[in-house]
Amino acid sequence: MLNFNYYNPTRVVFGKGTIDQVGALAAPYGKKVLLHFGGGSIRKNGVYTQVTGSLKKAGLQVVELGGVVPNPRLSLVREGIKLCRDEKIDMILAVGGGSVIDSAKAIGFGARLSDKEDVWDNYYMNQDCIVNDTIPVGVVLTIPAAGSESSTGTVITDWDNNLKRAVNSETIIPKFAIMDPQTNFSLPAYQTACGASDILAHLQERYFTQEKHNDLSDRLLESAMKNVISYASLALKHPNDYRYRAELMWTGTIAHNNLLNQGRVGDWASHDIEHELSGLYDIAHGAGLAIVFPAWMKYVYRDNLDRFVQYAVRVWGVSLTFDDKDAMVESAIDRLEAFYRALGLPVRLSDAGIGNDHIHKMSESAMIGRSNIGNFKKLYAPDVEKILKLAL
Amino acid sequence: MLNFNYYNPTRVVFGKGTIDQVGALAAPYGKKVLLHFGGGSIRKNGVYTQVTGSLKKAGLQVVELGGVVPNPRLSLVREGIKLCRDEKIDMILAVGGGSVIDSAKAIGFGARLSDKEDVWDNYYMNQDCIVNDTIPVGVVLTIPAAGSESSTGTVITDWDNNLKRAVNSETIIPKFAIMDPQTNFSLPAYQTACGASDILAHLQERYFTQEKHNDLSDRLLESAMKNVISYASLALKHPNDYRYRAELMWTGTIAHNNLLNQGRVGDWASHDIEHELSGLYDIAHGAGLAIVFPAWMKYVYRDNLDRFVQYAVRVWGVSLTFDDKDAMVESAIDRLEAFYRALGLPVRLSDAGIGNDHIHKMSESAMIGRSNIGNFKKLYAPDVEKILKLAL
Repeated sequence: MLNFNYYNPTRVVFGKGTIDQVGALAAPYGKKVLLHFGGGSIRKNGVYTQVTGSLKKAGLQVVELGGVVPNPRLSLVREGIKLCRDEKIDMILAVGGGSVIDSAKAIGFGARLSDKEDVWDNYYMNQDCIVNDTIPVGVVLTIPAAGSESSTGTVITDWDNNLKRAVNSETIIPKFAIMDPQTNFSLPAYQTACGASDILAHLQERYFTQEKHNDLSDRLLESAMKNVISYASLALKHPNDYRYRAELMWTGTIAHNNLLNQGRVGDWASHDIEHELSGLYDIAHGAGLAIVFPAWMKYVYRDNLDRFVQYAVRVWGVSLTFDDKDAMVESAIDRLEAFYRALGLPVRLSDAGIGNDHIHKMSESAMIGRSNIGNFKKLYAPDVEKILKLAL
Repeated sequence: MLNFNYYNPTRVVFGKGTIDQVGALAAPYGKKVLLHFGGGSIRKNGVYTQVTGSLKKAGLQVVELGGVVPNPRLSLVREGIKLCRDEKIDMILAVGGGSVIDSAKAIGFGARLSDKEDVWDNYYMNQDCIVNDTIPVGVVLTIPAAGSESSTGTVITDWDNNLKRAVNSETIIPKFAIMDPQTNFSLPAYQTACGASDILAHLQERYFTQEKHNDLSDRLLESAMKNVISYASLALKHPNDYRYRAELMWTGTIAHNNLLNQGRVGDWASHDIEHELSGLYDIAHGAGLAIVFPAWMKYVYRDNLDRFVQYAVRVWGVSLTFDDKDAMVESAIDRLEAFYRALGLPVRLSDAGIGNDHIHKMSESAMIGRSNIGNFKKLYAPDVEKILKLAL
């Protein structure tokens, strides 16, 4: 078990009817709030009215910036930074899913940078950056998936250059996250499925480590994986059942708040490879992960066979003989693929209509700004190319 | 799943050689530190030297208050409150286990009360109290057990009146907790065993709820329970093995930081009954819990048979037929008792040399200041008497 330093101060307010608390939660941070959101679904499902009503009741001034899209764009981040400076915004309220929250985080710390620093060049494109300040960010979560509501991370896409990159910092952890599972009832089935895939991926990225003797984290991650696997299909089949939506939503937060992975370094190569896919083809992140993860597993599992055997036994209940560990792992990956397919997700590039035209380009692009990706196994461009070919 | 509001801002600094960071972590809170500790074991194992060296290096002034005993006393809390006021203490550093931390928390908020309020009468003896302010408390943990290092709770004993009572508040959560598992190498076997019992009890208290459809919390609690059960005996047999000490120590924190029990109300009757035992006989808390918990289970399990069946299957791996659920639960309780016995703990009052002389008195005393205890099943004095008789 590695030494660690864990700190997560997000206040989670979870449950039915909790959105009305947003005004009271935001008020301590100042008078002027930037309301940041996506394509307008919050106007249809009533969340917009609930949020603005509560903010106004708390005496807060609201400036709006909508239009966040999946794989959130650097261009809107730049617009948001200018808006925050011009309007002297005190707090940013992200209302939506991971894309909205990631965009809000980027705007939040971007607005506090000096004129000499650029949010993209000096931060997203610099893995060694340190974020020291931010406009506080609060969240009203409407999509369980990214876990950004209490995470250290933000992922932004520079669409002009097809680059998708992340920044991680304790400084940008949201101050609060309001989570009412009822807001998930109106999510399209495909979005629910992609969310479940993203949650499972966050757990798997943390699970696949070369660090030994870190069993509590293993067990907690296995529990959360089993919960996603158990409730994703139920939530799809019963979209208005609060119980299943609540299980997925809370699992999504815990999957990514870093408490379950202390004492180890996670992998994250599958995320990095997926970022190339969605940076180029603009497919949903959760769908891309369902394509990349099985291929990654097939490529790397022999680097620590026993870790994958543990995954097979403890997560998927594989009961084959330990005399044939390769078969145990193969069976686990089969079950993972069956899980994705049952949710209606692609598990091959061809399922998503993607051919081998840009595989070489993506494997080169994944190395821009870094020498390799992944920690379970260090991957270089030729490795990424092989993994993408396994996913064809 | 119940609505919830979760917030836990303790910074956990975990691992080998981390105690040297205490000066830097304490410095932001002010210049004058009250160093609070127990009977002096920290002088023998080198922790005292490490802590005071780091504090001095950070330019902090140190005032000492040692002498905390297990089942920490109200009398020393009162002494500490006076000392903090006289010396204008900026932060309290608890160096030790749960008793030291609980005492530090009591001193911390007690010192900020008005002259009109009494720390015991208005807080510990008043279940509806709200704590609004405290001198910040930091922790260097040397015994994994109570989980007080990142919890909302503090339990204090008024020895003059044989009363042991708790206060819970977000306000008193420690600011940081330094945890070096190497400090546990020198713990006596019995103290290690009692710590493991306390950790398991914290998880079981949270697990036994009447709330339904709160499966993520169930699974996470089961994981942590299985980890204590797996590593307690290994830590006893290999006291200087960092791996097993580290598993127990981190599990102890996670068992009590409240992330694993959101969406439900835990039980806590076994803790309340145990407080009567240790308040009267001054036995170790973990030993008392090993006596009370099996008896409590036998008394209440029929109130939600399926919850105990889930516990039997998922935690203890009981594989008996579901046609005989009573036998499944009986087998699980047998395994729990065998676990305690293997650690050298008592599982009956007679094992601890306690007879039935004061059972009636303890059951009456458990109701002082409240009308009943427990949430899984509401217990009144006659129930407590029956449970203690089952434990004879």
